[in-house]
Amino acid sequence: MTMDAGKYDQEAIDAHRSWRGKVDYSSKPTVANLHDLSVVYTPGVAAPCLEINKHPEQVWELTGRGNLVAVVTDGTAVLGLGDIGPTAALPVMEGKCVLFKEFAGVDAIAIALDVHEPDQIVDVVAAIAPSLGGVNLEDISAPRCFEIERKLQERVDIPIMHDDQHGTAVVALAAVINALKITNRTPGGTRTVITGAGASGIAVASLLHSYGVEEIALVDSKGLIVPEREDINLYKREVAGWSGRSLNADGSIPQIADVLPETDLYIGLSGPGLISPAMIASMNREALVFPMANPTPEIMPHLAAEAGAAVIATGRSDFPNQINNALAFPGIFRGLLDAKIPNVTDAHKLAAAEAIANFVGEPSADRIVPSIFDEGLGQAVAEAVKSS
Amino acid sequence: MTMDAGKYDQEAIDAHRSWRGKVDYSSKPTVANLHDLSVVYTPGVAAPCLEINKHPEQVWELTGRGNLVAVVTDGTAVLGLGDIGPTAALPVMEGKCVLFKEFAGVDAIAIALDVHEPDQIVDVVAAIAPSLGGVNLEDISAPRCFEIERKLQERVDIPIMHDDQHGTAVVALAAVINALKITNRTPGGTRTVITGAGASGIAVASLLHSYGVEEIALVDSKGLIVPEREDINLYKREVAGWSGRSLNADGSIPQIADVLPETDLYIGLSGPGLISPAMIASMNREALVFPMANPTPEIMPHLAAEAGAAVIATGRSDFPNQINNALAFPGIFRGLLDAKIPNVTDAHKLAAAEAIANFVGEPSADRIVPSIFDEGLGQAVAEAVKSS
Repeated sequence: MTMDAGKYDQEAIDAHRSWRGKVDYSSKPTVANLHDLSVVYTPGVAAPCLEINKHPEQVWELTGRGNLVAVVTDGTAVLGLGDIGPTAALPVMEGKCVLFKEFAGVDAIAIALDVHEPDQIVDVVAAIAPSLGGVNLEDISAPRCFEIERKLQERVDIPIMHDDQHGTAVVALAAVINALKITNRTPGGTRTVITGAGASGIAVASLLHSYGVEEIALVDSKGLIVPEREDINLYKREVAGWSGRSLNADGSIPQIADVLPETDLYIGLSGPGLISPAMIASMNREALVFPMANPTPEIMPHLAAEAGAAVIATGRSDFPNQINNALAFPGIFRGLLDAKIPNVTDAHKLAAAEAIANFVGEPSADRIVPSIFDEGLGQAVAEAVKSS
Repeated sequence: MTMDAGKYDQEAIDAHRSWRGKVDYSSKPTVANLHDLSVVYTPGVAAPCLEINKHPEQVWELTGRGNLVAVVTDGTAVLGLGDIGPTAALPVMEGKCVLFKEFAGVDAIAIALDVHEPDQIVDVVAAIAPSLGGVNLEDISAPRCFEIERKLQERVDIPIMHDDQHGTAVVALAAVINALKITNRTPGGTRTVITGAGASGIAVASLLHSYGVEEIALVDSKGLIVPEREDINLYKREVAGWSGRSLNADGSIPQIADVLPETDLYIGLSGPGLISPAMIASMNREALVFPMANPTPEIMPHLAAEAGAAVIATGRSDFPNQINNALAFPGIFRGLLDAKIPNVTDAHKLAAAEAIANFVGEPSADRIVPSIFDEGLGQAVAEAVKSS
C-alpha cells in the first residue's frame, strides 16, 4: 500500500522538458496595426498612467496588479528536499502558479530569490510590491519564515501569506472541524498532540488554539515543548504553555509516548515512522489521527485503523482525506484580492477552514475534506474570506 | 498635420479598464485529475527540482526561466511624463510585455520598484535574477540608469539592457545606416549633432561612435558638451571630446545654432521647437534630420523638408520612418535568450542595427527603417544577435 514517491519521476521530467515553463503568457489585446499599438502602448498608454498617478487606487482597475500574486521562495525548505537553492525550487513555484490559476483564476508569477537573510528578503519583496496584489511565501525555512512574514506584512499594504504555515493550518483545521463533528467532540474538550514544530506545526497549533482547542502538546525532535526548556525559539515559546505540562519529575523532557495517552487528536508534521500502533492504542476511544508527513506518514493509515483510530487523514492523494494546501490557498487569495484585503488575519483563516469543512456537506470518516477537484470550492473559500 | 497626443486618451482608458492587465496568464499543463496534479506539482515535481539542483543548467530546459524577461522600472522617467511613480508606470511596463510576446514570443513580467537609490535597485533586481532569463530596464532616469545597468550586469549572468538607451540607439543607428546609403555617405565623413544628453542621447552617440561616426557634437540644455565644461557628469564627459570643439573664444558655450552649420546628420532626443528651418538650411546639402522628440518633434517634418533635409525620421507613427524601439528590443532579447548570452555588448547592438537596416531591402528617403509589423523582423534581429 506504500506509494512509490519516485513513480512519477521520469514522467515529470519529460513533461517539464516539453513545457519549458508551466505558465503560458499571452497578450489580452490584439496588436495588429498602428491603431492597436497606439492604445496598448504609446501614445495612448500615457492616459492610464496619468490616471493612476492622479488616483492611485485606479491601479486596481487599469492594470493586472489586482489579480497578480507572486509565489516567492529562497529555496531553503523545498518540499521534503530541504535547501536546494532558488533555481532548483522554480518547478515547485511554477506548479503553485498553475494551481492558483486553475483553482481560483489568480494570476501568479514565480520569484526565486538569491538572498537569504530575513531582512534582505523583506527588503526585496517590499521593493517589488507595487507590481503585486499579494505575496505567497513558499518553502522558506523556519524560524526565518515567521520573521520574514511578519516584517514584510508590516511594510506593505498587500496581503502576505506563508502557505507552508497557514495553508496547512487552514486545511488541517477544516479536517479537524469535520472530525470533531462526526465524533461528537467540542474544540475545548479535544486534547491534542502535534509532532513537528517547524513552520507548519507551529501554525497548526496556533490556528487550532484560535479555534478553541485549549490543550495542545507540541513535540519537537527533543520531545514535548514546555516552558522550562531553554533550547526553544520564541515561536515555540508562544505555544509552550498550551500543553499544561512541564518537565518530568526527574528533569527529563517528556517524549511522544509519554504525551499521547488519553488524548483525542494527533497531528503529525514531522517524519516517517515516529508513531507506533501501541501509541495510537493509548489514545482516547475514537481517536483522530492525522499523520501528514509526506511522502511517508508518521504511521501508515491501515496500522492506525487497526490500533483503533476512528478518523484518519494524511497528506497523500492515494489515501482518503488528503490534507492538501491546494484546498485553501487559491480560494484564500481569490477572496483577499477581490476584497482588496491588505493583510491576512486569524478571522480570514478560520472562515476559510469553516468554508472548506462545510463544503463537504455530510462528512464521514472517509470524507472530512473536499477533493481539490470539487467544482466551486475555490469560490466558496473566497466568499468566506471576503465576508469574514 | 500635428497629431493630437490626447486623441487616444479615452479609448486607452476604457480599453485598460476592460483588460485589467494586458498580460494573460494561463496554465500550459491540464490539471484535471490527481495524476495530472502529481506530475505538475507534488510528488512528481521533486524530480525536476533535484535535476536542477544536480545540473544547474537544466533550469533552462525544465522551467520557463529561459524565455522570461522582467521589464523593470522605478517609475522615474516614464514616457515624456517624468517621475510618476512605480504603480503609475505599470501600464507602460505591461504594454512592453505585450510587445515582447507579440513581436518575438518572449514572456515578460512587469516589475515596478518602490526603491530609487541605484544600489538598492541593483540589489533588488540581482536578488530576483534566479527567476529570470533577462532584464529590460525601462524608464529609469539618467544618469542613475547608467550606473544601475553597469552595476547590475556586473552582478548577474543574465543580460541586462536599458531599452531607453540601447533600443533607441540600435534603431537610430539602423536609420542612419540606410540614410548614409541613400545619400552616399560614409560613417567617418558624417558630421553629426545630437540634442539631448539624457539616457538615449548618450547611448545614441556612443553607438554611432562605435559604428565609425567620428565627429559627434552632443548638445544639452546648456549647449555643446565640451571637455572644458565643469558641469557635466562622467557619462557626458566620455563623449565630450568627440565634437573636436571647445568653448567659444569668449569662454561661452557654443549653442545649437553655432554647431549645426555644415553638418550632415542631426538627431533630436530633446524637446519640441528647438530647431528652426534656418538651422536646417545651414546644414550640408542632403542633410539627414531625425527630430525624435515625442509627441512633438524638435522640428516638424514638413518644415525640415522645406529647409532642404533629404531624409527625415521621427519617433512618431503618423510620419514615415518611425524610429521605434519596438523594432529592436523584442528581437534582441529573443536572440540573447536563445543563445543564452550573459550580457549585451556593442557587437550585439551593431549587429541588431545592421539587421534592421538590411531588413528594408531597397531603402528610400521614405523608408529607411522597417515597420514593426513586417513579418519576420524580430527573428532576423534575433539571428543577427545570436551570430554576432
